[in-house]
Amino acid sequence: MKNILVLGAGLSASSLIRYLLTNSEQYNWQVRIVDQDLDLVQRKINGHPNGVALSFNALSPDERKPEIEKADLVISMLPARFHIEVAHDCIELKTNLITPSYISPELKRLDHAAKDAGIVIMNEIGVDPGIDHMSAMKIIHAIQNKGGKVESFKSYCGGLIAPESDDNPWNYKFTWNPRNVVLAGQGGAACFIRNGQYKYIPYNRLFSRLDKLSISGYGDFMGYPNRDSLSYRAIYGLENIPTIFRGTLRRPDYCEAWNVFIELGMTDDTYTMVDTEGMTPRKFLNAYLPYHPTKTVEVKFKEFLREDRMYLYSKFEWLGLFEERPLLQAETPTPAQLLQEILVGKLSLSKGDKDMLVMIHEFEYSLNNERFKITSSMVNIGEDQMYTSMSNTVGLPTAICAKMILNGALKTTGVTLPVYPEVYTPILDELEDFNIRFEEEEIRL
Amino acid sequence: MKNILVLGAGLSASSLIRYLLTNSEQYNWQVRIVDQDLDLVQRKINGHPNGVALSFNALSPDERKPEIEKADLVISMLPARFHIEVAHDCIELKTNLITPSYISPELKRLDHAAKDAGIVIMNEIGVDPGIDHMSAMKIIHAIQNKGGKVESFKSYCGGLIAPESDDNPWNYKFTWNPRNVVLAGQGGAACFIRNGQYKYIPYNRLFSRLDKLSISGYGDFMGYPNRDSLSYRAIYGLENIPTIFRGTLRRPDYCEAWNVFIELGMTDDTYTMVDTEGMTPRKFLNAYLPYHPTKTVEVKFKEFLREDRMYLYSKFEWLGLFEERPLLQAETPTPAQLLQEILVGKLSLSKGDKDMLVMIHEFEYSLNNERFKITSSMVNIGEDQMYTSMSNTVGLPTAICAKMILNGALKTTGVTLPVYPEVYTPILDELEDFNIRFEEEEIRL
Repeated sequence: MKNILVLGAGLSASSLIRYLLTNSEQYNWQVRIVDQDLDLVQRKINGHPNGVALSFNALSPDERKPEIEKADLVISMLPARFHIEVAHDCIELKTNLITPSYISPELKRLDHAAKDAGIVIMNEIGVDPGIDHMSAMKIIHAIQNKGGKVESFKSYCGGLIAPESDDNPWNYKFTWNPRNVVLAGQGGAACFIRNGQYKYIPYNRLFSRLDKLSISGYGDFMGYPNRDSLSYRAIYGLENIPTIFRGTLRRPDYCEAWNVFIELGMTDDTYTMVDTEGMTPRKFLNAYLPYHPTKTVEVKFKEFLREDRMYLYSKFEWLGLFEERPLLQAETPTPAQLLQEILVGKLSLSKGDKDMLVMIHEFEYSLNNERFKITSSMVNIGEDQMYTSMSNTVGLPTAICAKMILNGALKTTGVTLPVYPEVYTPILDELEDFNIRFEEEEIRL
Repeated sequence: MKNILVLGAGLSASSLIRYLLTNSEQYNWQVRIVDQDLDLVQRKINGHPNGVALSFNALSPDERKPEIEKADLVISMLPARFHIEVAHDCIELKTNLITPSYISPELKRLDHAAKDAGIVIMNEIGVDPGIDHMSAMKIIHAIQNKGGKVESFKSYCGGLIAPESDDNPWNYKFTWNPRNVVLAGQGGAACFIRNGQYKYIPYNRLFSRLDKLSISGYGDFMGYPNRDSLSYRAIYGLENIPTIFRGTLRRPDYCEAWNVFIELGMTDDTYTMVDTEGMTPRKFLNAYLPYHPTKTVEVKFKEFLREDRMYLYSKFEWLGLFEERPLLQAETPTPAQLLQEILVGKLSLSKGDKDMLVMIHEFEYSLNNERFKITSSMVNIGEDQMYTSMSNTVGLPTAICAKMILNGALKTTGVTLPVYPEVYTPILDELEDFNIRFEEEEIRL
């Protein structure tokens, strides 16, 4: 019997655990799952005989190492900063490791040590990063294999709300960590390359530099730039590509409205506000509007919006931004924390709501003096609030990779990514059984 | 003979040294001045028999302490972060100390130790901070002494170029550290209080939230908000004042144009740009403008400016922003470093140029059910590029305070500020002899 150790049973682990347990009888696996919340683990195991719920502290080396020693494979669903310690243990104990997270520079430096230990440390094998790498590399390799040259690559991903649950004027709900949504894009300019020219977009313009995209049957989306597009050149072997861009998808008008929060200064997380006793959404907004002895907050906000953006006004009204309801934040909240509380009160998932993961790649390539454009898109809708699309798209590629490692189908060693055909081909194939599939369209330019 | 030790002989020390030497015969002082640049010290002493040039390392306790031991008074013109170490030495050796810089929290904590040692550590006694405190407290105390209540205090200061040297479309030249000018306002929102309401201005709107001010004979100025206005409430004993605002002065249209750099993202110092080999002002600007296959940088920049700000265009043209001249910055410059190089090439002082220090206070107060407004303003023009207005306004109050301490006219001990009449009255009086004087105007509201 093979022994799989899963560290962490949070939101993104649900579909991973279900897949491993469902396949555990056929492949003779025991799935040992640890989380500080034992009850959570037991709910996710749901009485399956091959599941073992553990509740030791996965962050303590002393408690963790005996379990890693017993395991044939470790899957770390812990927050990314803890992977490095787990990786050190796995190298010492010669146990394979999978993480869905970005490879940190420290982890990258363990490549030789992992190879010497004869193990694989597979990373970035969730959805973004993960499915984005795999689906893009499949097309890039196909273009290159027929002699084509990729000249432009634009890629967009968004965790959104499913159309059937999309019932608010922002066309958005939090399907993931709200804090990350509020802080999105902060901490430096977005950089990408367009026809050989490096372009930088500062945070104050990030949500106004938008690409419009559509997916047949799913309507329109807008993409705003991600901070880092350039590092994908090396990962995808496209070092000299003249155009590369990565973006995040929202529904139309979301970004334009979000930009108003940024302009006002309400997304800042770098300072705490003073005198916030009895703070209300209205007072919070007013702190970012000019003083006027008689004008109402509504009038001042409309003046700030300007006539050309007045179509956004109802979004802010719907959020309750003008209300005198007390906010419950910490004693010295940052603006971002106050904004998050307002948004969470309005944009959280309701019972029965489903999430939606959308990914769009656009490739332009030349072949025999002709130019072509391939658009590849994936839309996946969650099952419920346990097996969300986010959980499925993160957990299933991770789980399939686990199966491949345990079955000996993956021979590579070292610290690696799913950018090689022997990894991505079987995973993308099997993901189609779970309705995670890309629709491809090619035109001549 | 009394012994004064001056640490640092940089730009802001010139007028201080001249005053001390000029008064040294009357008061029987020896002025010992240390700087790593011995030649600089000798030029500033200019052969005066009571000046002694020293060139030890003032940052080394072993080299510094024997000199402090010999001194009756230390004046630290070192960068502010070094004052704390000097203060520890002065307490140990029971030597009085003056610094023109803001009191750091660490320095503040030495108050008891300084009192126990029987010494005074006088701080914030340059121009801003310094003359601002003294001139404001004089009026605040006068209002309070006649039973009035200060209800609004707005204060502005700017280091500018003298009218006779003002010959460029920005009406600005660097009269101080250019890096501080490029980074001005970064790192958190400006906060002030207006009619009891706290107001926050994020960096992206800082240079568009402007107050218009005028000084008879000197024309118009615009004030943009300083980061911190609130801490002045405690310093000035105005804890419950409904309106307090501190701002920085520039000539009209400077701020509006500077705001364009901020919007573009060109003042950012938090990341380094890639591929900057052969960087030119034109390429630098283009990196912040959208890609277009045929439009020129000029056309794209005009589109970014918008019709309503087209009057600013010539300022950017004059800076050479569209030129293909190579920039000489470090290998991986930040945007702020590139912008600084462009600006320094155009906005530096020319031979014979004079600087100008401008300070404006506006007080509103109530007395016997009537309301009044006092406007107090000071304009000071530098003598030349050694005895600049910046040097005079920083160095002279420091020097006069030194005289008061040595003559026994200042009896206070501890870590303190010039906010008490026994300090500010004689200093403000003597500053008038140097043409540093405030014009006051009062109206009934």
